[in-house]
Amino acid sequence: MIATVVGVGLIGGSLALSLKEKGLANWVIGVDNNEENLRKARELNIVDEATSLEDAMNRSQLIVLAIPVDGLLKLLPSVLDKVKPDHVVMDVGSTKDIILQLVAGHPQRGRFVAAHPMAGTEYSGPEAAVRNLFTNKTMVLCDVKNSAEDALEVIENMVDKIGMRLVYMNAEEHDLHTAYISHISHITSFALALTVLEKEKEHGRIFELAAGGFESTVRLAKSSPDMWVPIFKHNRSNVLDVLDEHINQLQQMKGLLESEDYEAFYKLIQKSNKIKKILK
Amino acid sequence: MIATVVGVGLIGGSLALSLKEKGLANWVIGVDNNEENLRKARELNIVDEATSLEDAMNRSQLIVLAIPVDGLLKLLPSVLDKVKPDHVVMDVGSTKDIILQLVAGHPQRGRFVAAHPMAGTEYSGPEAAVRNLFTNKTMVLCDVKNSAEDALEVIENMVDKIGMRLVYMNAEEHDLHTAYISHISHITSFALALTVLEKEKEHGRIFELAAGGFESTVRLAKSSPDMWVPIFKHNRSNVLDVLDEHINQLQQMKGLLESEDYEAFYKLIQKSNKIKKILK
Repeated sequence: MIATVVGVGLIGGSLALSLKEKGLANWVIGVDNNEENLRKARELNIVDEATSLEDAMNRSQLIVLAIPVDGLLKLLPSVLDKVKPDHVVMDVGSTKDIILQLVAGHPQRGRFVAAHPMAGTEYSGPEAAVRNLFTNKTMVLCDVKNSAEDALEVIENMVDKIGMRLVYMNAEEHDLHTAYISHISHITSFALALTVLEKEKEHGRIFELAAGGFESTVRLAKSSPDMWVPIFKHNRSNVLDVLDEHINQLQQMKGLLESEDYEAFYKLIQKSNKIKKILK
Repeated sequence: MIATVVGVGLIGGSLALSLKEKGLANWVIGVDNNEENLRKARELNIVDEATSLEDAMNRSQLIVLAIPVDGLLKLLPSVLDKVKPDHVVMDVGSTKDIILQLVAGHPQRGRFVAAHPMAGTEYSGPEAAVRNLFTNKTMVLCDVKNSAEDALEVIENMVDKIGMRLVYMNAEEHDLHTAYISHISHITSFALALTVLEKEKEHGRIFELAAGGFESTVRLAKSSPDMWVPIFKHNRSNVLDVLDEHINQLQQMKGLLESEDYEAFYKLIQKSNKIKKILK
């Protein structure tokens, strides 16, 4: 099979590597607006060839759209306009509701499978692509009832071969859950980085002491705004909802500290410790 | 040398292991209010012997106090009351200003070296103790001008032998910097865990999607309230100051999302990305 990956960054590049490694594609074509990224992806043997989207679509069966969600909104309808009956189109976008509403009535909607791999790092671009990024991770497929059976089978087989766990959700559910599990963690990290950078101006030695705990909590603040602003935009109401709750929790802690109610503070931390049951 | 470790948990236990491994102590005595922890520490060969503080002090040269900061406030003065001229007492507490004010006028103040190893994990108790916890980490020594030269030398030699980097600070500076680098990260994680646990009640499937980013940001929320409530209590004004700034940053992000000012949001994330220069 010939596969096309549009967007040869962290996710697209890693997927290209997996497709080749697992024998799912014998040839991977890269398409990208960014000529420099495309050149690097060729150089790093992430893709076998670089060409235009039109040429790539003419020769591929699988087309993976691995670009930020705002770009996806523009690109997906025009890709579906051009698909042939044996084409399978998959995205990897971090929000799902808006994109699926957009193509809901498209005559070729069946050729599209909406996917979100719960995997990534704080890095971006083709240099960030790694083998095995997806191993043992979760792939969410959304609203699969609207995908053609044969298209879904191609994707399910691919997900299975690259060693991912499959979870099915509707788009609304997906966007709510990712707001809690992924989007708020990024907001928190960005805000924590800003907090500390703000104070560093006054107190230059702060970072001498940075240890594992800080690095862990602030790691996601290295993430690219090109990817994350569109996510927050497209999942705005869920993100605002969880952000409200998070600010409330912080204000509650602040209140207890102000009133020196350490007994209640203790109970609050005990309650938060219940996260142990969820994490490894 | 015979060393006594009071509090055979994560930090005390790991230090006991290092003292033996690096040949700094040929015998380590464990003292702990918690009989069960003491028994485990013996069983795991973290300490060679368990006895009372009085007996231990009679036979040791180095006494490490590795208990939560509230316990330290009670214990340190009475330990200094009993020290002999060749005793060296070190703590490992995460806040420094209050404890050093407390013993400022003590006639045996010189035997005490105030230390804070910037190392740890989210786990606690003797089972959490690990070899090499301190390797390549930073040890902060505070207000060393008030420690006797020979006592300081014992500790500096120990820190060097266990492979730590030394940083000297005054207590006030230390408490300010740790509020930014360590304490706020914990507050954020606790609050994030509470946020998500709160919503989980309504939406049970949230955790199916938990991936690396979430785990990284929320990891510290597994930390023990026995350790952390006293820290927040004793560093209250610094923690409140940084917590205020953090809530402000989150509210700024919320405001931009509400007004859909994605350009400003983009710039804010770009600014937070500067944390890259600080982290590895």
